Amino acid sequence: MIEDKDQQRTSLSELGEFGLIEHLTKDFEPHRTSTIKGIGDDAAILDFKDKNTVVTNDLLVEGVHFDLAYMPLKHLGYKAVMVNLSDVYAMNATATQITVSIAVSNRFPLEALEELYAGIALACNMYDVDLIGGDTTSSGKGLLISVTAIGEANSEDIVYRNGAKANDLLVVTGDVGGAYMGLQILEREKEVFKVNPNNQPDLSMYSYIIERQLKPEARKDIPALLRELGVKPTAMIDISDGLSSEILHLCKQSEVGCNLYEDKIPLDPQVISTCEEFDINSTMVALSGGEDYELLFTISQEDYPKIKGNPHLSVIGHMTPESEGMHLVSRANTKIPLKARGWNALREE
Amino acid sequence: MIEDKDQQRTSLSELGEFGLIEHLTKDFEPHRTSTIKGIGDDAAILDFKDKNTVVTNDLLVEGVHFDLAYMPLKHLGYKAVMVNLSDVYAMNATATQITVSIAVSNRFPLEALEELYAGIALACNMYDVDLIGGDTTSSGKGLLISVTAIGEANSEDIVYRNGAKANDLLVVTGDVGGAYMGLQILEREKEVFKVNPNNQPDLSMYSYIIERQLKPEARKDIPALLRELGVKPTAMIDISDGLSSEILHLCKQSEVGCNLYEDKIPLDPQVISTCEEFDINSTMVALSGGEDYELLFTISQEDYPKIKGNPHLSVIGHMTPESEGMHLVSRANTKIPLKARGWNALREE
Repeated sequence: MIEDKDQQRTSLSELGEFGLIEHLTKDFEPHRTSTIKGIGDDAAILDFKDKNTVVTNDLLVEGVHFDLAYMPLKHLGYKAVMVNLSDVYAMNATATQITVSIAVSNRFPLEALEELYAGIALACNMYDVDLIGGDTTSSGKGLLISVTAIGEANSEDIVYRNGAKANDLLVVTGDVGGAYMGLQILEREKEVFKVNPNNQPDLSMYSYIIERQLKPEARKDIPALLRELGVKPTAMIDISDGLSSEILHLCKQSEVGCNLYEDKIPLDPQVISTCEEFDINSTMVALSGGEDYELLFTISQEDYPKIKGNPHLSVIGHMTPESEGMHLVSRANTKIPLKARGWNALREE
Repeated sequence: MIEDKDQQRTSLSELGEFGLIEHLTKDFEPHRTSTIKGIGDDAAILDFKDKNTVVTNDLLVEGVHFDLAYMPLKHLGYKAVMVNLSDVYAMNATATQITVSIAVSNRFPLEALEELYAGIALACNMYDVDLIGGDTTSSGKGLLISVTAIGEANSEDIVYRNGAKANDLLVVTGDVGGAYMGLQILEREKEVFKVNPNNQPDLSMYSYIIERQLKPEARKDIPALLRELGVKPTAMIDISDGLSSEILHLCKQSEVGCNLYEDKIPLDPQVISTCEEFDINSTMVALSGGEDYELLFTISQEDYPKIKGNPHLSVIGHMTPESEGMHLVSRANTKIPLKARGWNALREE
């Protein structure tokens, strides 16, 4: 939130479209053996041999998905990649390449886009994916980022949303609700900053949840962990839109019901304390907050011993016959119907 | 340009994000055997067996790439697909799947997006590609379309930009300059319409060039034709950004020079007559107009007999050693250095 008045500003129009994309991508060298041709031709060429190709695309729009008042551009570049890799991992696949296209208004100097691409480069390095293409164009207003993530998988390893069976266990990775509460802190500090720009807030007590919002990590480790444990989920989905709406997707596509146990939902202590501070129900945050980029999956009960006690995995419920419906079982042991609510739901109340 | 005041308007907010994408894509059924899983999971799954995967992405932004004052939404959907397929064909590959993501402001009713997707559906049917995914989100302002096109090719068939050799022949498909002159007509009529909204212009004498702008076709037929003729180009590129800038790309990446002959450049009679009407140099339009979605390629001189006389193909020049540079040889037989000029170049003069 602190602007450096001395920062260098190079106008985008000085470079032109070709110069810009060349400049931004010049340090991206492909490393994957499956990348036959990356940036620099009409299209990229990939060779996955006998493996299947995985493809997903997401848009991030300024003012809708991010606010540059508190989202540094480097973090934004990193997050834009994470959002898409998460969808590849949710297929139990390996992410291998991305394309990144941006539409940008001329209020952004070149140095801002360099920051954005530094975040993309960091993500590529950390997650072992190649940047293989993209497009740069001007926008009437604001910044928009379109990422296509590509992956590979043996066809027999791929996990869809539609394979859950009654009595399967419902498992979530990591913990949930952190990204949403991190956003609440950032929005509050933005308001404080407007009133007093010299205020230097101590946000150390919120460091985990702020990082969950600003620098989320996709669960690259989970497909590898599952292989190691010898577990193939029966269904899997990423929970970027919030736990409840993703559970409903799984149930609907698998034609099953479920019981989700409130007391089993994994929450970080910072989520609990910040929910108390904001006087928000932490279960509601976990169910509807979204943006956690964790994976939600179902496994056969036979596989329970293999995952039991694993610190990355929490069993939060079980699937039921479709006729029994989808329910949250509260701490008081009452059954409450689960409703589909997106990540904006809380704000609309 | 005539607005129907009685048209139905369903607000996008009535549907929500999931409802919207489901509604728009419900009639898209995958047909390709390589499409294992299309829309409806975290990512799409494709199986190209032992073939290579081809990937390209382009953005189309309202106010930059299209003007809804004269671009019907159905045509826009069709064109957004063509722009991307053209890049796949430029690799001498077969286009097989697309993802389409849109960012849209709430000024658009559902019916407008249905029109857009009707154009996408038509393109999918005509070009035998499956819609396999995408994202829908709101935008602060205007409409943005991000298309990723996927294709397949045997690795030995793929043609890059960097294989042209000195003495190779330079060949272009179809004719050039039409899309740019079509745009000039549409822009002129838009101004006329502003002054007199009841004017019903007779545009039949411009039908070809207007169609080149509003409903371009990608050259799906060219990779097939080349196979049939037994010709593998040494280098290939699509000329969406204008003939001269694409020739320069080919030369730069292949490390060769070239002589382009002005009198060999294929122009439709409507392009010539409209250039006369607007008092614009038709060669300049051909070189810098852009948006023609034709293919430009080089072949070994040995292959000349195979393409000679083919109505789809025009030999417009030949490659030279790099040291000789890149030139336009004018009708008066003078050599003029070729300059990189994008499709906006003409308007900036």
